Amino acid sequence: MARLTGGDPSLLRRINSAVVLHALRATDCATLTEVSRVTGLSRPTVEGVVEGLIEAGLVVETAAGEGTARRQGRPARRFRFRAEAGHLLGLEIGVHRVAALLADLDGRVIGAEAADADETVDADERLERLDAAVSRLLDRAGVPRGSLRAVGVGTPGIVEADGTVRLGTALPGWTGLGLGELLGRRFKCPVLVENDANAAVVAEHWKGAARETDDVVFVLAGLSPGAGSLIGGRLHRGYGGAAGEIGALHLLGREATPETLLSTTDEPLHPLDEQAVAEVFAQAREGDKRALAAMDRFIRRLVHDVAALVLALDPELVVIGGWAAGLDGVLEPLRRELARYCLRPPKVALSHLGEAAVATGAVRLALDHVEEQLFAVEGTVTTRR
Amino acid sequence: MARLTGGDPSLLRRINSAVVLHALRATDCATLTEVSRVTGLSRPTVEGVVEGLIEAGLVVETAAGEGTARRQGRPARRFRFRAEAGHLLGLEIGVHRVAALLADLDGRVIGAEAADADETVDADERLERLDAAVSRLLDRAGVPRGSLRAVGVGTPGIVEADGTVRLGTALPGWTGLGLGELLGRRFKCPVLVENDANAAVVAEHWKGAARETDDVVFVLAGLSPGAGSLIGGRLHRGYGGAAGEIGALHLLGREATPETLLSTTDEPLHPLDEQAVAEVFAQAREGDKRALAAMDRFIRRLVHDVAALVLALDPELVVIGGWAAGLDGVLEPLRRELARYCLRPPKVALSHLGEAAVATGAVRLALDHVEEQLFAVEGTVTTRR
Repeated sequence: MARLTGGDPSLLRRINSAVVLHALRATDCATLTEVSRVTGLSRPTVEGVVEGLIEAGLVVETAAGEGTARRQGRPARRFRFRAEAGHLLGLEIGVHRVAALLADLDGRVIGAEAADADETVDADERLERLDAAVSRLLDRAGVPRGSLRAVGVGTPGIVEADGTVRLGTALPGWTGLGLGELLGRRFKCPVLVENDANAAVVAEHWKGAARETDDVVFVLAGLSPGAGSLIGGRLHRGYGGAAGEIGALHLLGREATPETLLSTTDEPLHPLDEQAVAEVFAQAREGDKRALAAMDRFIRRLVHDVAALVLALDPELVVIGGWAAGLDGVLEPLRRELARYCLRPPKVALSHLGEAAVATGAVRLALDHVEEQLFAVEGTVTTRR
Repeated sequence: MARLTGGDPSLLRRINSAVVLHALRATDCATLTEVSRVTGLSRPTVEGVVEGLIEAGLVVETAAGEGTARRQGRPARRFRFRAEAGHLLGLEIGVHRVAALLADLDGRVIGAEAADADETVDADERLERLDAAVSRLLDRAGVPRGSLRAVGVGTPGIVEADGTVRLGTALPGWTGLGLGELLGRRFKCPVLVENDANAAVVAEHWKGAARETDDVVFVLAGLSPGAGSLIGGRLHRGYGGAAGEIGALHLLGREATPETLLSTTDEPLHPLDEQAVAEVFAQAREGDKRALAAMDRFIRRLVHDVAALVLALDPELVVIGGWAAGLDGVLEPLRRELARYCLRPPKVALSHLGEAAVATGAVRLALDHVEEQLFAVEGTVTTRR
């Protein structure tokens, strides 16, 4: 904070701006008197701050106020936060597809786009398809790239603080990829890269199955399984960003990998062949005995992974996503086994957000970044102009 | 903080007291001028604060200062923190013994005492033996019970915030025991009850193998295994206090319990028979083949437990304690297997504190409590007199 106190506008003015912006954002629109009452600031102070926010493009006087003004003489002017003053992207880079969500500064999603990208697609091509999806999305919404304030990205693998993928075995060419830098060249705003399961747990906490708790583990079931957790509402990344990388548990149990468990023949599935997995799931739904047996093996394995996470972390809630989000049959055995093995079994729920979890979490990470900027040093917006 | 600002002495005086006390504690002894320089407080302010601390019994003018005063006219007076102004106890309640450490207000251990209490000893008798050990310890050190400022306790089981044992299968009569309340009756000061593995990880971080890291998992290997972890230097208890209760992993893997793995006959050991385990360890050291095979099975199992914790939490360091602290052979297989299964293998070390880990951690928990009191609301000490 020290560097803020010396200059002009003062730290106080910045704090007041953040407080007023926060109050306006919490409501549809408000009068200066209402903002003054909510914030405890004097009316002249609120008026000065709101003028600055209007200049910065973050607040606008509402048309409703203007409309009634003509008829009734001089009603109070009303103002609202301009959620459309900037935009956010939430990107998902997955093993079988890439996806993008576009949101306004309230985090409201205003568009979505996706493209296939199976396990044979290399890193360059995967990022090309993602970029093409983003371009289509922005074009359709009529939002210029310059309006983007932050981009969140969810990807498999262990991600360094600078957005480099330290280790990513689920995607070809992923280990060592400077994902943050590569995407940073395509956008003129901050790009925040996060592990996919971490992004998903943030999403379920924001809009999904974990809204009511701050201590939650999200399990992204799949051929390359992972987990993300919030402890006291904060993302637990681990010392080296590898927390929740539970794929190795399959090996540890000296039992089989998902691709062996889920095979209905003597040959394991291809390690990244999601399509083959979908077929096994479909066969199981039709009552195929070999497929049902494969599902049973897979669920037993999932229960084991989840139990290990629960014993280590002791969350209030476990949310199951990825493949398993579509598995009606997974919750009951999971609850039964957790009750048997855990001293304090957590609640268990399926993902509410399903396929959208990772990209939604990426939006939230972008929004967190922008909110930090708006509410911490909002004053710089007005002085930079 | 609000309730502090209204009264007298002022909040400022309390803060100054805490700052001065902190400065004096960090050195052997210091002059008023030195304290003034270190704290940035004026000399008259420091002088006033030090007088208050002397009245409260927390600071004393050193004899050295007085001694030189006579010879050399008027040298600067020197003052020191009175670490002997109060005392702390760190208690361990174990499956085969109870133990107590006595420390001064600097956390320096000035006495230790222990007593056997095997798995047949009930809760009342176990607490009696602990109390008798404490009495012997205090008598020998010449410290009255009234001098105790806080008592830390490490116990197996899941411990509630009020010190009740929610679940404790390792000791007879332990589940549901109001341990905090029972011990509170025997002491006139705050009693802080903590899970034993949690206490141990605090101890290794304070004085042991984990001094250099804030992200560490401590594994208390034993017939009733457990783990404690620090995340960013803070104890991770989990939502319901059950984090690290990894005993159930043995069942989950559908492999055997430690008592089966460690048996050298076809019959498993008694679940809580530590003596039998010690014999197997001794036989293994003498080269007995069946004992060596049992050790090998046990180490494989331990590796599995540790790997599950590492995958979930991603610590910088794993410290192995409990039985395994005495096992030379445990580190190499552990490092090898973690490197094989973990995407980012942590460092691995044996406990430095060994058998003293739990009681030492209990001392630290008591010291944390006292420091919070001294440094947060120190002023109340002077106003209460």
